[in-house]
Amino acid sequence: MRWFKLTLAYDGTAYAGWQIQVGQRTIQGELEGALARLGGQRIPVVASGRTDAGVHALGQVVSFSARLRLSTDELRAALNATTPPDILVREVQETAAGFHAIRDARSKRYRYVVHDDLLPDVFAGNYAWHVRHTLDEQAMRRAAALLVGRHDFSSFEAAGSPRASSVRTVSDLQVQRRGRAPFDPLEPRRLVIEIEADGFLYNMVRNIVGSLVEIGRGKQPVAWLEDVLAARDRRLAGATAPPQGLFLMHVCYD
Amino acid sequence: MRWFKLTLAYDGTAYAGWQIQVGQRTIQGELEGALARLGGQRIPVVASGRTDAGVHALGQVVSFSARLRLSTDELRAALNATTPPDILVREVQETAAGFHAIRDARSKRYRYVVHDDLLPDVFAGNYAWHVRHTLDEQAMRRAAALLVGRHDFSSFEAAGSPRASSVRTVSDLQVQRRGRAPFDPLEPRRLVIEIEADGFLYNMVRNIVGSLVEIGRGKQPVAWLEDVLAARDRRLAGATAPPQGLFLMHVCYD
Repeated sequence: MRWFKLTLAYDGTAYAGWQIQVGQRTIQGELEGALARLGGQRIPVVASGRTDAGVHALGQVVSFSARLRLSTDELRAALNATTPPDILVREVQETAAGFHAIRDARSKRYRYVVHDDLLPDVFAGNYAWHVRHTLDEQAMRRAAALLVGRHDFSSFEAAGSPRASSVRTVSDLQVQRRGRAPFDPLEPRRLVIEIEADGFLYNMVRNIVGSLVEIGRGKQPVAWLEDVLAARDRRLAGATAPPQGLFLMHVCYD
Repeated sequence: MRWFKLTLAYDGTAYAGWQIQVGQRTIQGELEGALARLGGQRIPVVASGRTDAGVHALGQVVSFSARLRLSTDELRAALNATTPPDILVREVQETAAGFHAIRDARSKRYRYVVHDDLLPDVFAGNYAWHVRHTLDEQAMRRAAALLVGRHDFSSFEAAGSPRASSVRTVSDLQVQRRGRAPFDPLEPRRLVIEIEADGFLYNMVRNIVGSLVEIGRGKQPVAWLEDVLAARDRRLAGATAPPQGLFLMHVCYD
């Protein structure tokens, strides 16, 4: 038996998310289909986290074990030959026995892209959240700094999905203005939020972004975020930001 | 009667091109549909040029005349309220009587985007030509310089589409490396060709790009392009580059 670590990029637009669901196109379904064609039987895979419908990935990590004779380069080429063009296996590595993409993950980094402009961008509908107001990134940056560190993030956890603990450590939370022209797809003008943590509660990034955008629009003061965090009550935070602005950037392992 | 100039951006992926065709979704069809809903009757429009299926625009210009009571701002808002999200009216201006988007155009600028990397980019399938070789942009830049100026471009005109004259003046032809990371949709690493001329023959940009890429791949020397241009024979140039890398950037008027 050999153990593998795959690094995947995908455009989540056409998929009902990562996890296999009957009658739906999913990333896991496409990848396991490609592996079954190579291995002659179902080879179950585990991803570092389940991305929702419409969410994208630049560096999703997947683990599995299988009896395969291909080299890692051959495996990458063989998988890319049969997966659709919106899913790409960037890297294949052979790992120590027992490698597990969820259990062994030390931290993850997500990016959320906001297009804050009166007019929509015809190229960005599936890759950014369009907010029809110019956001105050200074205020958002001050608010973001309040979340860095070890906190109970229950206020940003989707209702009905409690984990054993809702304490997580956010090691980095950046709010940056990028790009130049609102209409140039090679340098789109965007507000970009990047967040790195040792783990994320369900919908945590999208709930944090929804709350930061409330502050960026001037609907809430910066200090409000401190109250929301302290309250540990989901009903106080901003609305969940839509999925298409979210990108899983990378996952770190020891 | 009032005369109007519209500036449009569109993602051409879902369309059979600009021009109305029975049973097909086209940009012209969507725009005239939106105008008919406002004006109560068909209002024919003229674009600066007909883009092909899959070709995009950041600054297509359209002219029409109509008896409408809306202000230009109201007209823009009303059109954008009914056109699909992959078509955007960026600007509406009222012009002097007789303004015509083709006849009055003084020059046009196109961009062509090449993704030259061994691996495809999951986000770029509809917005770039994927060439699985790193291109030599220095050679392409030297070759591009040979085309600047007033020349007979018959060698780069699609077969079976002769115009009265195939002499055009190319005022600018840039080959640039842009972006940083091959997998970052906010700064994609691309080879970008931009070309400006007083007019273009049918498929001229895509045929020039196809020829420059032959040189960038090392399949032809730089001087070959001079021979192709001088021969005035379409069979000598490179293959036509695919449509999805092409963007109409802007059109200049006096």
